[in-house]
Amino acid sequence: MSYKQIIDSKLSQYCSKQRLYIESFNEAFCYSLLNGGKRLRALLMLTIIELKRQVSEDDYKIAMGLEMLHAYSLIHDDLPAMDNALLRRNLPTNHIVFGEDLAILAGDGLNTNAFYMISSAKISPEKIVKIIKTLSEKTGIYGMVLGQAADILSSKNKLNKPQKWLVNFIHKNKTARFLQSCCEIGAILSDQDERPFSKFGLYLGMSYQIIDDYLDIVSDKKVLGKDKKDIDNNTLTYPKVYGIEKSLDLANKLKGLAIDALKNIQGHEKLIELAEFIVKRAS
Amino acid sequence: MSYKQIIDSKLSQYCSKQRLYIESFNEAFCYSLLNGGKRLRALLMLTIIELKRQVSEDDYKIAMGLEMLHAYSLIHDDLPAMDNALLRRNLPTNHIVFGEDLAILAGDGLNTNAFYMISSAKISPEKIVKIIKTLSEKTGIYGMVLGQAADILSSKNKLNKPQKWLVNFIHKNKTARFLQSCCEIGAILSDQDERPFSKFGLYLGMSYQIIDDYLDIVSDKKVLGKDKKDIDNNTLTYPKVYGIEKSLDLANKLKGLAIDALKNIQGHEKLIELAEFIVKRAS
Repeated sequence: MSYKQIIDSKLSQYCSKQRLYIESFNEAFCYSLLNGGKRLRALLMLTIIELKRQVSEDDYKIAMGLEMLHAYSLIHDDLPAMDNALLRRNLPTNHIVFGEDLAILAGDGLNTNAFYMISSAKISPEKIVKIIKTLSEKTGIYGMVLGQAADILSSKNKLNKPQKWLVNFIHKNKTARFLQSCCEIGAILSDQDERPFSKFGLYLGMSYQIIDDYLDIVSDKKVLGKDKKDIDNNTLTYPKVYGIEKSLDLANKLKGLAIDALKNIQGHEKLIELAEFIVKRAS
Repeated sequence: MSYKQIIDSKLSQYCSKQRLYIESFNEAFCYSLLNGGKRLRALLMLTIIELKRQVSEDDYKIAMGLEMLHAYSLIHDDLPAMDNALLRRNLPTNHIVFGEDLAILAGDGLNTNAFYMISSAKISPEKIVKIIKTLSEKTGIYGMVLGQAADILSSKNKLNKPQKWLVNFIHKNKTARFLQSCCEIGAILSDQDERPFSKFGLYLGMSYQIIDDYLDIVSDKKVLGKDKKDIDNNTLTYPKVYGIEKSLDLANKLKGLAIDALKNIQGHEKLIELAEFIVKRAS
């Protein structure tokens, strides 16, 4: 089984065991968590661990926490007050199925539960603290949440900042820093120097988001599995600021920097494949 | 200075040092955090520590984290899709001032940043992990968020459960378990047995919420500092299920159980005062 299949199956098991008494909340919580996706955050973490040692049950627990955090961010991003998205991974978004109230709460619960999963892992407390510190830094007000605020405000023309500065700020904070922390966490868990993986994750994340913007323009809605909202929503994207060609060029350069960061790492082929896949992907 | 004054002042300093680049997000984040309140969660934690030793700077850092988590819960509870509240502590609610998008994100940021604050404290990793574990358990899907889901769904007549079971479930999860974890955290930080404080916090929290329901019925809006929404919102409350007299009786009994849990704790007078204050308070 691939890591994606293992994570999907473990999340499925996890959800089938939850008895939260309030059934519709339980469903809203699991709906977005089990709704597929590339499991990129878990994949990055696990692939980095694999460079050093076999993946353990506790590693999976932490990987599930990362995917919970990611699921929360998608539910909240899709809300009517945010991107107002109706479709995600070819299914109606969480608030369309369960209502805004449960969607907000499912997101909140997934966010907090990520930290519960991680703090419950049976690994050294030193590692758990390092993991929670990088993750809460890079997905909170010094990362993802801040980037989402910049994204939303910029799309509503409420920010008076230079476009090139802003698009870089949004991508770095909204997307890249979370991926960066997933790579750092892989290194922490497997006793490797975090720095090269941290760089790799940051550059990869920047590249990833440029490709995401590009796909929103050129892809078919069905392939993408979600509404093409960037133009409707007036989202600030790399193609809008730099044009398509220069954006793809930048994405490739960033991928190159990501790969370069790993040059002294033994056995990094799978990570490079992952980076190549991200830049070549179709959805 | 009282603990409340110290916490207010430390949160104020913290906010004045934040430079999050996106000014309106920065403001939304700080607005609800600095908007007063009793600081009950911090107070409980600090008062429990004080039984054993002097409060340290790192304790305050963790207390600030608890108040951030509380501020997040209020912002999200007040949202249009939830309680649709216009007023909180005599000021317009976060989404009224900053819009729903920033209010959701400020809440998300406060939630995650609580874990960042705690994981950044310079205390033993073992303690940090224990603290994060109890907090994320009791404010997430096994506590506060679950209780809020039950509350909202019950007010929309979407839950088919016996009323007595439900009102107890809501109060325990929505309010009491967070207070319980604050008490446990105080004990963890000061190397005391968590069990009596855990019981104390749980009973106190139950009592606290009954009084909250009662005040919503009898108090003046100005004294309360928020809209009296329980009747408009069809909220399931103790007075509704048991009547006012029996509810006050129950609140007193629970306060008694809380105090009783501390019977073997030396120097517990300040905690008992706190419990008495909670049941006697006017807002």
